[in-house]
Amino acid sequence: MKTNPGHFFEDYSIGQRIDHAVPRTVTTGERALYHALYPARHALFSSDEFAERCGFDQSPLDELIAFHVVFGKSVPDISLNAVANLGYAEGRWLKPVWPGDTLRAVSEVIGLKQNSNGRSGVVYVRTTGFNQWDEPVLDYVRWVMVRKRDPEAPAPETVIPDLKGALDAADLVVPEGLDFLQYDFGLAGEAHRFGDYGIGEKIDHVDGVTIEDAEHMMATRLWQNTAKVHFDATHREDGRRLIYGGHVISLARALSFNGLANAQMIVGLNGGAHANPCFAGDTVRAWSEVLDKAETPAPGVGAVRLRLVAYRHGAPEFALRTEEGKYHPDVLLDLDYWALMPV
Amino acid sequence: MKTNPGHFFEDYSIGQRIDHAVPRTVTTGERALYHALYPARHALFSSDEFAERCGFDQSPLDELIAFHVVFGKSVPDISLNAVANLGYAEGRWLKPVWPGDTLRAVSEVIGLKQNSNGRSGVVYVRTTGFNQWDEPVLDYVRWVMVRKRDPEAPAPETVIPDLKGALDAADLVVPEGLDFLQYDFGLAGEAHRFGDYGIGEKIDHVDGVTIEDAEHMMATRLWQNTAKVHFDATHREDGRRLIYGGHVISLARALSFNGLANAQMIVGLNGGAHANPCFAGDTVRAWSEVLDKAETPAPGVGAVRLRLVAYRHGAPEFALRTEEGKYHPDVLLDLDYWALMPV
Amino acid sequence: MKTNPGHFFEDYSIGQRIDHAVPRTVTTGERALYHALYPARHALFSSDEFAERCGFDQSPLDELIAFHVVFGKSVPDISLNAVANLGYAEGRWLKPVWPGDTLRAVSEVIGLKQNSNGRSGVVYVRTTGFNQWDEPVLDYVRWVMVRKRDPEAPAPETVIPDLKGALDAADLVVPEGLDFLQYDFGLAGEAHRFGDYGIGEKIDHVDGVTIEDAEHMMATRLWQNTAKVHFDATHREDGRRLIYGGHVISLARALSFNGLANAQMIVGLNGGAHANPCFAGDTVRAWSEVLDKAETPAPGVGAVRLRLVAYRHGAPEFALRTEEGKYHPDVLLDLDYWALMPV
Repeated sequence: MKTNPGHFFEDYSIGQRIDHAVPRTVTTGERALYHALYPARHALFSSDEFAERCGFDQSPLDELIAFHVVFGKSVPDISLNAVANLGYAEGRWLKPVWPGDTLRAVSEVIGLKQNSNGRSGVVYVRTTGFNQWDEPVLDYVRWVMVRKRDPEAPAPETVIPDLKGALDAADLVVPEGLDFLQYDFGLAGEAHRFGDYGIGEKIDHVDGVTIEDAEHMMATRLWQNTAKVHFDATHREDGRRLIYGGHVISLARALSFNGLANAQMIVGLNGGAHANPCFAGDTVRAWSEVLDKAETPAPGVGAVRLRLVAYRHGAPEFALRTEEGKYHPDVLLDLDYWALMPV
Repeated sequence: MKTNPGHFFEDYSIGQRIDHAVPRTVTTGERALYHALYPARHALFSSDEFAERCGFDQSPLDELIAFHVVFGKSVPDISLNAVANLGYAEGRWLKPVWPGDTLRAVSEVIGLKQNSNGRSGVVYVRTTGFNQWDEPVLDYVRWVMVRKRDPEAPAPETVIPDLKGALDAADLVVPEGLDFLQYDFGLAGEAHRFGDYGIGEKIDHVDGVTIEDAEHMMATRLWQNTAKVHFDATHREDGRRLIYGGHVISLARALSFNGLANAQMIVGLNGGAHANPCFAGDTVRAWSEVLDKAETPAPGVGAVRLRLVAYRHGAPEFALRTEEGKYHPDVLLDLDYWALMPV
Repeated sequence: MKTNPGHFFEDYSIGQRIDHAVPRTVTTGERALYHALYPARHALFSSDEFAERCGFDQSPLDELIAFHVVFGKSVPDISLNAVANLGYAEGRWLKPVWPGDTLRAVSEVIGLKQNSNGRSGVVYVRTTGFNQWDEPVLDYVRWVMVRKRDPEAPAPETVIPDLKGALDAADLVVPEGLDFLQYDFGLAGEAHRFGDYGIGEKIDHVDGVTIEDAEHMMATRLWQNTAKVHFDATHREDGRRLIYGGHVISLARALSFNGLANAQMIVGLNGGAHANPCFAGDTVRAWSEVLDKAETPAPGVGAVRLRLVAYRHGAPEFALRTEEGKYHPDVLLDLDYWALMPV
């Protein structure tokens, strides 16, 4: 067979390294599309002049462009036969990605655990994105539940990686040159700075976006993520295309501008859950909670740890979990990340 | 509250200057999207070689890209609480915008008039777009009806600016270097030139486009215009998203290529009304009327003043107003602008 | 009348040359949109580094971008009044198109045959695309059935061009510098090379995409192809917009990555039929058949002749024709092309 059947649970082994195919050069074309697909307004990714004032030579590409491209590369090898995308941990952005950079991705299998039913198992991989100089620009752990090809295949030894619940602030990599001492709060869009946010503070981001199928398909394809379930309306019994979870991440992050306009750069991904599936026609809103704050060695740069929750219109204010501890059925995303903000 | 509540009528004062947030670098990525979103074919904005033959170093970005970006910047400060966008006047394009330029916008409040019901008022602003060298590239006046936060707030002194009904040809700025003496009518797509258009002449532009929600949302987001009503289907009682008026302007202008292929550059905006709301599913058509003609000092360059009317499929030919003097319910846009055309 | 009425059958004459309007500069913006609109993953068009390893200075634009732009230019002069797009032959890609190139198109009328009903006729044109250095980058023959303006107009002498059923491998132009000796099959996405494909082999490309109106309209507009039937839902009695046949070509070619990831460059178009109309809501799948193989003089480069069939979900496996010899009603495209593949 010439087509890619994807990998099954028994195909993975601890320490296995997978070089993902199809490197991708990303340009200002991808940036323009990002602005068309998401209500993204963080000034550092919108204006070369604003970025220069923050110590860069030009505006980098949104960190989520880097994430989506690297993630998309890994789909054919990691999640083509995945039943579920279970979690993320220890995600770090290590270098900005600039227009013209070429990204490729490599994954290492760091954990395996067969499910008790013997039909599937959980695979943990650490995926790293590299630029054209072989410098790592991003790495993160994710774990997925993958079907077995042959239920009779023997179970591998269970290895569950020891993952941090959240990155320490000291683990974060502040991009070289970043300097918020000349930061222009007026041009950034909001006056609130590091000191204005208190741990435990919650912000309802007010705005909502109703998603169309054409939009999430264009976004997902742009990252060369070709998982059937996002594109083929005949794949699910209900005739609906499941929206790529990363689309909801980018949408929620963009909506969070309204209240977090100065949380300019994402540098760490502590964890994340795609709590419920999202479909075209859903109106997505978002709220954030300040989980932690920390200083960084970079001039004028603080780090804020944020929970970002995307939810469907109609959910109660700051909805997260039901009394039974499950996610509220209208919660779509529960993301835990570190962002850099001027002090 | 950390989120932007927008300004209310009583927040504005005569002479107030508002520096709008989030400067934006525009590139060939934005141009490609413009061509995907609108049936734009004017050769000067399509081909570097054609633009070079007209005296430029390269093809500038469509003037409406500049307009939309500058307009989009002003939305959070001017029209977030607007009940209606009432009009435009004295719009001038002052410099071409080139790929790589960064635009920001500033508005000055030049008029205020509280409505007799005391609950809202009309705010007049002159908005100017600047490039990265602080050169103005565009300015225009618009006035919007804005709600009051507190109906008891005292009415400001009424100031209604003295606005020109139409720019004089002498007010128009012809871009430096523009020269139509080597103009290639074959490559431009039509043979009709300045002398072939008579004042009073009307042109039905024949083509029509049925609008999808995904398209107008991508377009509007591309300009970082995040007004709720365009994106959130739960915002209006009828569950429809109101299409950004500027989307209809760009669509109608692009459709006008068929009959006005040589009206290459927009240089003046005399006035405009978004006559009726436009929604996804509407099939939009356009007609034009030649209102005036003038010479310019630039070699081979004439100026044509045009009325551009966008209408919904089904309206009678050259529909504009009903017998009562109101806009025909299928008229969407009535725009009055100056364009440059080879003589 | 100022608007373009298109040409009618009696307007064409043998040897007539038509310079099509509106040259177009294509950039990385168009490439980004191509990746958003189609699940395109061939590595040569995705990564500058991969392209450098294949002997180029950078990644060229997808050959189908060149095709669509050139085709789009010809629409206002050739197919505005076309009843049907009947076929293609002798298509050759002659030079890669690079970001920043400006394309224009010229057609020559090479055949005419009035239909027996006297109301229409078949027009054969050879269309050539040129870059900004007046180098031909692409040429192909297509023939369309065009209405007559006046059924009484005399029939022209019938001239039917002598067209090759398929290009010989020796007719193909391998781009200067192309060299697959350092080809990285891992990064390309599949291990199968020239020797692994047998003549007669068929490949079902597995994946499917359900098309939305917003997507095909954005794609078609991007190529400045403004034929009414693709955009105006009031044009057909059933209220559906007919999808541009080229959209189906690009979609099917992109889907064929899964099984033909190493068929990197299209260099020849032997023929093609848009077997049945395609509409939004259709889920499109594809299969290929290896028709022929040949060596080329370029290092490490073989040529594979492929049949690419796009079909609607639900058609039987490898569906092509019914027992009566007609295309199966769910077959959308039957394309015959040459591609270059590492040996």
